[in-house]
Amino acid sequence: MARRYDSRTTIFSPEGRLYQVEYAMEAISNAGAAIGMLCTDGVVLVAEKKITSKLLDSKAVGVRREKMYKLDDHLACAVAGITADANILINTCRATAQRYYFAYQEPMPVEQLVRALCDTKQGYTQFGGQRPFGVSLLYAGWDEHYGFQLYQSDPSGNYGGWKAVAIGGGHAAAQNLLKTEYKEDTPVSGGIPALIKVLSKSMDSSLTSDKVELATVTRDAATGKVIFKVYESAELQPYLDAANAEKEAAASS
Amino acid sequence: MARRYDSRTTIFSPEGRLYQVEYAMEAISNAGAAIGMLCTDGVVLVAEKKITSKLLDSKAVGVRREKMYKLDDHLACAVAGITADANILINTCRATAQRYYFAYQEPMPVEQLVRALCDTKQGYTQFGGQRPFGVSLLYAGWDEHYGFQLYQSDPSGNYGGWKAVAIGGGHAAAQNLLKTEYKEDTPVSGGIPALIKVLSKSMDSSLTSDKVELATVTRDAATGKVIFKVYESAELQPYLDAANAEKEAAASS
Amino acid sequence: MARRYDSRTTIFSPEGRLYQVEYAMEAISNAGAAIGMLCTDGVVLVAEKKITSKLLDSKAVGVRREKMYKLDDHLACAVAGITADANILINTCRATAQRYYFAYQEPMPVEQLVRALCDTKQGYTQFGGQRPFGVSLLYAGWDEHYGFQLYQSDPSGNYGGWKAVAIGGGHAAAQNLLKTEYKEDTPVSGGIPALIKVLSKSMDSSLTSDKVELATVTRDAATGKVIFKVYESAELQPYLDAANAEKEAAASS
Amino acid sequence: MARRYDSRTTIFSPEGRLYQVEYAMEAISNAGAAIGMLCTDGVVLVAEKKITSKLLDSKAVGVRREKMYKLDDHLACAVAGITADANILINTCRATAQRYYFAYQEPMPVEQLVRALCDTKQGYTQFGGQRPFGVSLLYAGWDEHYGFQLYQSDPSGNYGGWKAVAIGGGHAAAQNLLKTEYKEDTPVSGGIPALIKVLSKSMDSSLTSDKVELATVTRDAATGKVIFKVYESAELQPYLDAANAEKEAAASS
Amino acid sequence: MARRYDSRTTIFSPEGRLYQVEYAMEAISNAGAAIGMLCTDGVVLVAEKKITSKLLDSKAVGVRREKMYKLDDHLACAVAGITADANILINTCRATAQRYYFAYQEPMPVEQLVRALCDTKQGYTQFGGQRPFGVSLLYAGWDEHYGFQLYQSDPSGNYGGWKAVAIGGGHAAAQNLLKTEYKEDTPVSGGIPALIKVLSKSMDSSLTSDKVELATVTRDAATGKVIFKVYESAELQPYLDAANAEKEAAASS
Amino acid sequence: MARRYDSRTTIFSPEGRLYQVEYAMEAISNAGAAIGMLCTDGVVLVAEKKITSKLLDSKAVGVRREKMYKLDDHLACAVAGITADANILINTCRATAQRYYFAYQEPMPVEQLVRALCDTKQGYTQFGGQRPFGVSLLYAGWDEHYGFQLYQSDPSGNYGGWKAVAIGGGHAAAQNLLKTEYKEDTPVSGGIPALIKVLSKSMDSSLTSDKVELATVTRDAATGKVIFKVYESAELQPYLDAANAEKEAAASS
Amino acid sequence: MARRYDSRTTIFSPEGRLYQVEYAMEAISNAGAAIGMLCTDGVVLVAEKKITSKLLDSKAVGVRREKMYKLDDHLACAVAGITADANILINTCRATAQRYYFAYQEPMPVEQLVRALCDTKQGYTQFGGQRPFGVSLLYAGWDEHYGFQLYQSDPSGNYGGWKAVAIGGGHAAAQNLLKTEYKEDTPVSGGIPALIKVLSKSMDSSLTSDKVELATVTRDAATGKVIFKVYESAELQPYLDAANAEKEAAASS
Repeated sequence: MARRYDSRTTIFSPEGRLYQVEYAMEAISNAGAAIGMLCTDGVVLVAEKKITSKLLDSKAVGVRREKMYKLDDHLACAVAGITADANILINTCRATAQRYYFAYQEPMPVEQLVRALCDTKQGYTQFGGQRPFGVSLLYAGWDEHYGFQLYQSDPSGNYGGWKAVAIGGGHAAAQNLLKTEYKEDTPVSGGIPALIKVLSKSMDSSLTSDKVELATVTRDAATGKVIFKVYESAELQPYLDAANAEKEAAASS
Repeated sequence: MARRYDSRTTIFSPEGRLYQVEYAMEAISNAGAAIGMLCTDGVVLVAEKKITSKLLDSKAVGVRREKMYKLDDHLACAVAGITADANILINTCRATAQRYYFAYQEPMPVEQLVRALCDTKQGYTQFGGQRPFGVSLLYAGWDEHYGFQLYQSDPSGNYGGWKAVAIGGGHAAAQNLLKTEYKEDTPVSGGIPALIKVLSKSMDSSLTSDKVELATVTRDAATGKVIFKVYESAELQPYLDAANAEKEAAASS
Repeated sequence: MARRYDSRTTIFSPEGRLYQVEYAMEAISNAGAAIGMLCTDGVVLVAEKKITSKLLDSKAVGVRREKMYKLDDHLACAVAGITADANILINTCRATAQRYYFAYQEPMPVEQLVRALCDTKQGYTQFGGQRPFGVSLLYAGWDEHYGFQLYQSDPSGNYGGWKAVAIGGGHAAAQNLLKTEYKEDTPVSGGIPALIKVLSKSMDSSLTSDKVELATVTRDAATGKVIFKVYESAELQPYLDAANAEKEAAASS
Repeated sequence: MARRYDSRTTIFSPEGRLYQVEYAMEAISNAGAAIGMLCTDGVVLVAEKKITSKLLDSKAVGVRREKMYKLDDHLACAVAGITADANILINTCRATAQRYYFAYQEPMPVEQLVRALCDTKQGYTQFGGQRPFGVSLLYAGWDEHYGFQLYQSDPSGNYGGWKAVAIGGGHAAAQNLLKTEYKEDTPVSGGIPALIKVLSKSMDSSLTSDKVELATVTRDAATGKVIFKVYESAELQPYLDAANAEKEAAASS
Repeated sequence: MARRYDSRTTIFSPEGRLYQVEYAMEAISNAGAAIGMLCTDGVVLVAEKKITSKLLDSKAVGVRREKMYKLDDHLACAVAGITADANILINTCRATAQRYYFAYQEPMPVEQLVRALCDTKQGYTQFGGQRPFGVSLLYAGWDEHYGFQLYQSDPSGNYGGWKAVAIGGGHAAAQNLLKTEYKEDTPVSGGIPALIKVLSKSMDSSLTSDKVELATVTRDAATGKVIFKVYESAELQPYLDAANAEKEAAASS
Repeated sequence: MARRYDSRTTIFSPEGRLYQVEYAMEAISNAGAAIGMLCTDGVVLVAEKKITSKLLDSKAVGVRREKMYKLDDHLACAVAGITADANILINTCRATAQRYYFAYQEPMPVEQLVRALCDTKQGYTQFGGQRPFGVSLLYAGWDEHYGFQLYQSDPSGNYGGWKAVAIGGGHAAAQNLLKTEYKEDTPVSGGIPALIKVLSKSMDSSLTSDKVELATVTRDAATGKVIFKVYESAELQPYLDAANAEKEAAASS
Repeated sequence: MARRYDSRTTIFSPEGRLYQVEYAMEAISNAGAAIGMLCTDGVVLVAEKKITSKLLDSKAVGVRREKMYKLDDHLACAVAGITADANILINTCRATAQRYYFAYQEPMPVEQLVRALCDTKQGYTQFGGQRPFGVSLLYAGWDEHYGFQLYQSDPSGNYGGWKAVAIGGGHAAAQNLLKTEYKEDTPVSGGIPALIKVLSKSMDSSLTSDKVELATVTRDAATGKVIFKVYESAELQPYLDAANAEKEAAASS
C-alpha cells in the first residue's frame, strides 16, 4: 500500500502520512547516537562515532568533531544522520546567526535560530524535486531570555525543547534510559557521567575514547561568557573507565 | 478508483474531488484536538497535547506553547496537524499582520488576516510540485469592526466564523458535544469549564495539566487592550479537577 | 477510454474533450445552488447555503456572505463551487476593478471585468502544473453602457449574459424552472419571490433563513448610485414563508 | 498504435503525425459552423449559434456576438471551437494590431496580423506543458495592399487565403456546398443569401434569427472607411425566410 | 524495440539513433516535394502544391507563395513539411539576416545564415520539452564570396551545399531523376525545364499551374542586383505544357 | 537490466554506468572515421566522408569541409558523429577562443580550449532534460607552451593528448593500425602517407578524393605563423594513388 | 526491492538509503586507485593510471597528470572516477580558492576548501534533475593552522581527515594494507616506498612508470613555500624497481 505514495515528498498517503520523511528518519537510525542533557549550569552532549580507524587524522578539525559543531558563540549542536546533509544545515545556521548579529548587534535567541532552521527543513518536505534532509540535530545553547536550553529537531522540521533527549541509532532505548537516569537540578559535573552511562548501556561494545565525543556548553563564572568545550581523549577517559567498570559489574552480577 | 487521481494535487477526480486535500485532512485527524468558543467578553481556546514526557522542558517557549501561538497583539491561534507546517503558516501570518500595520498604522482586521492566510493555503491545492499544508487552525481575535471573533480554516483554504468549533483528532465528536454545551451569552469564565468538559469527554484518559493547553483572548477592562493569556499549570488545575470529577461521577453513575 | 486523457489539464482526448474541466464542473454540482435574475430595475441573486450550524457566527463577515460578494461599487457576484477557489477569483476581480478605476477614473464596464476574469480562468485549462478553478460565478452589475447586466461563467473560462440563470447543485432543474417562472419586465420586487420559489422547488427541505442568501443590485432613485444589498434574516423571512406555504399547498393538493 | 503518441503535444508519432493537434481539431467539429465569402465589395461571414435560450440576454455584448468579433477598424473574425480559447486569441490579435498602429501609425496589413497570430498558435503545438488552442478562425478584412481578404486558420497555426471557406461542425459538407454556390464577382448583396443558403442546407432544423449570426466587412462608398456590421434580427429575418422557404420547397419537391 | 526510446527527443536509443528526428522527417514525406538546381547564372526552385482548391484566393500573398519565400534581398527558400513550423523558421531567418545587415552594413553571407538557422534547429533535437521542427528547406542565394549557392537542411539541423537536390514527398525518387537530368554548366533557362520534368515524372497526375510553384534567384545583368522571381501562371504554363507533352509521349510509347 | 537506467542521462545504473553516454558513442560509430597524428613539425588530420554525391556542391564551404574546421588561427579540429551537434560545439569553441584573445591579447592555450569545451560536454551528461552531444572531436593546434598538440574528446567530456589517435566508425581497428604505423619523430611529410594508409586499410572500398579529407596544421618556417591547410583534390590524389596501389599489392599478394 | 527507489537521486528508499549515491560509488570502483599518506614533512600521493598507450602524448599537460592536479599553491588533489566529472570539481576548487585569496589576501585554509567542495557535491544528491558527481578525491595541502593535511571525499559530499587513505578500484584492499604499512612519524622519504608497495600489492601486474603517478606536497626548508611535485619517470623508476623486486621475492618465497 505504501508503495504508491512513498516515492515523492510532495504527496500525502491516504492515511495522511509523508513517507519520504519517515524514510529519512530511517536513514538517521543507522547513524551513531547523540544524547543531550540540560543541567543547572550548562548543557552536556555526548555522541557515538561510528567511523573509527587508527588511520583517521585526529588533528584534522573535521574529524575530531565528527558529531559536535559550534554554531555561534552561544550555541552548539550534535548531529545524527547523513553528515553531508548536516554540513549544509550547519552552514545555514551559522550564516543565519551571523546575519542576526549583524542586524541587531546581539546574539540570536536560541529558539529563534532553531526555528529558522526548522522552517528550512520543512520546505524540503513540502516541495517536489528534492528530498528531505536526512539528519536530526541536538542544539545546546544559552541566551539571556531563557538561560540554558536544549532542543531537538528531526527531518520533518519539527522541534522541541527537552531536559534530556536522544537522537540517532537506538534513540528509543536511550530515551528510556534517560527517564530513569535524569535527575532534576543535576549540574554538568553530574550530567556527564549520567550521559556516558546511558550511551554505554545503549552500545554493545565497551566505550573507548575514539568512539565517543563529549562536549559541554557552560558559562564562565567570572565573565558570563558562554563556553563550548569539546573534551580531549585524556579528559574523557576517566568517565569512560567508570562507565565500563559499572557495565562490567552489572554484567558479572 | 481513487488511485488514479490521488497522487497529484493539481487534478480533479471524475467526481470532482481533490484527494490530496482530503488526505491532508486525514493527517490532521491524527493530531491532538483543539477547541474554541466565542464568549461575550473574549474567546477561549483549549487543546490536547499529544507529546508529553517528563523530560520535555516546560521552560522552553516552543514547547510550552505547542498548540497556541500569538499572531499579533489582537490575534492568536491554536493549531492541529503537522507542527512544522503550522510554523510556516504562523510565520506568514505574523509577517502579514506586521506589514499591514506598517502600511496603515492600525491592526489588521481579523478576518482579513485569516483570508490572506487561506489564499496562501489555497495555492498549495491548485499548483503542482507541492503538497497542501497538513494543518487546521483556530483563530481567536478582536478588532474594532466586529469585536471578538473565532475562525477556523482547513487545508483546502476554506474558512468560517464560528461561535464554537473543534479541529484535529475527534473533532466530529467534540463538535457534537459543543452543540449541547454551547450557551449563548456565556462569558469567558463560563466558557473555560465548558470547553474543558468537552475536551475531557472526547479524550479517553483523565485530564492532566501537561496534556492540556488553555488560552484566552480578552480585553483589559480599563485600557481596552487585547490580552492573550496562556494558562499556567496551577491556574489550569482547578478546571481539570472539576472536569475529571464530573467525568468520574458520570462513569460511576 | 476517458482514463488515458483525464489526468492532465493540458491535453485533449481523441474526441476533443478536456476532462479536467469537466471534472471541475462536477465539483461545482456538489455545491449549493445560486440563481440570478435580471429585472427592469436591478438584479436579484439568491443562493442556498449548504454549511449551516447554529454554532456558526452569523456576525462574522465571511460567513454571513458565504455565497455573495461585492466586487466593486457597481458589481457583485454569487459563487458556487470550492469556496477557497472562489476567494482567489474574487480577489483578482477586486484588484482588476480597482486598477481600472485608478487608470481611467471611471468604473470598469461590467462585461470587461467578467472577461478579464474568464481569461484568467482559461489559462488554468491550457497550461500544465495546475488545475482549473472549481467554481462558477454569477456576476450582477450596472454600467452606463448597458445598464443592469447578469453574467455567468464556468471553470472553462466561458461566460454569457443571461436574463435568468442558475449555477451549482441542481442547476439544470433550476434552469428549467426559470424558463417558466421568468417574465419579461419583472421589477426586483417581483423577481425576489420568483427566485425564492425556484430555489424552494429545487431543494428538498423547506426554506429557512439560515439556508438562504438573498441579495440585490439596484440603483438609488435619487442619486443613481448602485446599491448592493444583502438581505437580513428578518427581511428574508416573509419571502420564505410565502414560498414554503406555496410549496406545502402544492404538495397537499 | 496512436495511444503511445497522443498524450503529449511535443512528440511526433512514427508516421510523423501530431495527435494533440488532430484532437484539437476534433474539439472544433463539435462547435457551430462559421462560413465566410470574399465578395467584390466586401466579405460576408455567417455562423451558427449552438447555445440558444430565450433566457439569454440579447442586450449583453458578449452574447450578441458569440461568434463574431471586431479585431481592429479594418478587420473582424468569426470563430468556431472553444470560446474561452477564442477570447484569448482575440485579445492577442487586438493588442497586436494596436501595437502595430502605435508603432507605424497605419493599420496593420491583414495577412501580417493573421500570420502573427498563427505563429502564436504554432508555439502551442511545439512546446510541452500546454495544449494547442482548440479554435479555428475566419478573418475578414481590408487593407490598401490587397483589398478585401478572407483567411482561415486552424489549431496547428496553419492559415490560408480563401474566396469562400467554412470552419467548425460540418465544415466539410459546407465546403462542398460552397464549391457549387460560389460565383466569381458576387457582390455582398449576393453573397449573403448564398451563405445563408449554405448554412441552411448544412443544418438539420430551419433557420431562426437567434441561431444565426451574420456580419459583413465593407467600405463606406463616400469615405472609404471599413465598416464591420453585425446584422440585427430584423435585418436578418428576410434572408432566413427566403432560405427556409427554399429549403421547404426542395424538401417537398 | 524502438518503442522505449521514441517518445522523447532528448535521448539516444541503444543504437545511437534519435527517433523523434526520424519521425519529424516522416512528417515531411507527406508534404509536397520541392526541388532546386544550381545553374551557372542563378538558382531554380520548383515545388508541388498539395492544397489546391478553386476557392483558394490566389491574390492573397500567403497562398500564392505556399512553398516559396523571400528571406532577404539575396536569399530565398522553398519549404516542405509542416507549414506552421516553416513560418517560424522563416521569421527567424529574416530577423537574423536583418540583424546582420544592421550590424555590418552588408548582406549576410548565405551559408552563415543557413548555419545560424540550423543551429536553432539542432537545439530542438537536444533539449526536452519540445519537438523538432517538422520541416526541410531549400535555400537559394547569392553572395560575393561564393556566388550562387543552393543549400538543403533537415529537422536534425544538418545541412549541405548541392548542385541539385530534392526534399519532401518522393524526394528519394526525385533525387535519382536529378542525377540523370543534371548537366554541368546549365543556365537557368535550361534548369527550369529540367526541374519541371523531374517534378512531372515524380508526380502521378499531369502538371497544372495551380499545383506547381516555380521561382528563380538570378542577378540583373546591368546592376548585379539579386532578383527573386516567382513565376505567374501564364509564364509557367509553357513549361508545364512541354513537360506534360513529353510525359504523355513517354507513356504512349 | 540496462533498460531501467538507459532512458535518462542523469542517473547511474547499479554498475555505475551512464548509458546515454554510451549510446551517444554508438551514434559516433556510424559516422565516418577521422584520424590524427602528431608530427615533429605539425599535425596531420585525415577523415572519411560518408555523404558523397556528384550533385554535392564542392564549392560550398560547409560541404568541402564536412569533417575539418578551423577553430582559431592556431587550432583546428576534425569531427565524427552528428554533424549538427558538431556545429554547435565548433561555434562554442570559436567564441571561447575569441573571448580569451579579447581578454588577454594572446592566443588561448590549446589544452585550455579543449578543456573548456569538455566542461560544456560534461554538463550535458549530468543534468536532465537534454541529451549528451553525439560527437567526438580531434583537436590539432600549436601554442608556445607545448608546441604542436593533438587532443581527442568524446561525448562524456573526457579528453586526452595523443601522438596518434582515431575516432568515429572503425576507430578501434584504426587505432590498432596506428600502433604499428606510428613512428617517433615523423615529419608531416611522412605522417600524411602513414595516415592515408591507415584510413585506406580501415575502409572497404578504394580511396577516392571525394571520400577523403586531409588537413595539416603546421608553422610557416619564416614567420612562425600557424597554418591550417585543407588539401585540394589534386594535392590529395598522389597520396591516394599510392595507398590504393599498396592496398591492391597487398590484396594480390 | 531496490528497483523502485534507485532511479532518482532525490528520494530515500524505505531503509533510508540513497541508491544513486551508492551507484556513483560503484562507478568509482572501476577507476584506477589513488592512495595518500600524511607524513611528518609533507603528503605523498600515488595513483594507478588505467589508460596507457604508447600513442598517448606524455608531453601534453592533461595526460601527464591524469590523476594529480594542483588546486592552489598550497593544495593538490588526486582523483578516482569519471574524469570529466573530476574536471568540473577541480575547476570549482580552483575558482573557490582564488576568490578566497582575492577577498582575504591569504590562502584558503585547507579544510574550508574541502568543505566548500563537499557542499557542492551534497547538493547533487538532494535535488532532482541531475546525478551525483561520480568521483572521489584525495586532497593534500598545508596551511598555517593545522600544517600538512590529507582529506578524502566521496560522491555523497562526505569527507574526512586521514593519516593514510585509498580511493578508487580496490580501495578496500589497499586500505587494509595501509593499516599495516603505516608507521607514525614517517617522513616523505619513507612514505613514498610505503605507498608504492601498497599500490604494487593491490595491482595484479608489475608496476611500470607509465602506469603510476607519484606526487608530493612538501615545504621548502628555506622559504617555507609549499611545493607540489609530480615525479618524472626517471625519478619514479627506482621506487618501482624496488617494489617489483620485493613483490617477486614475496611471490617466489
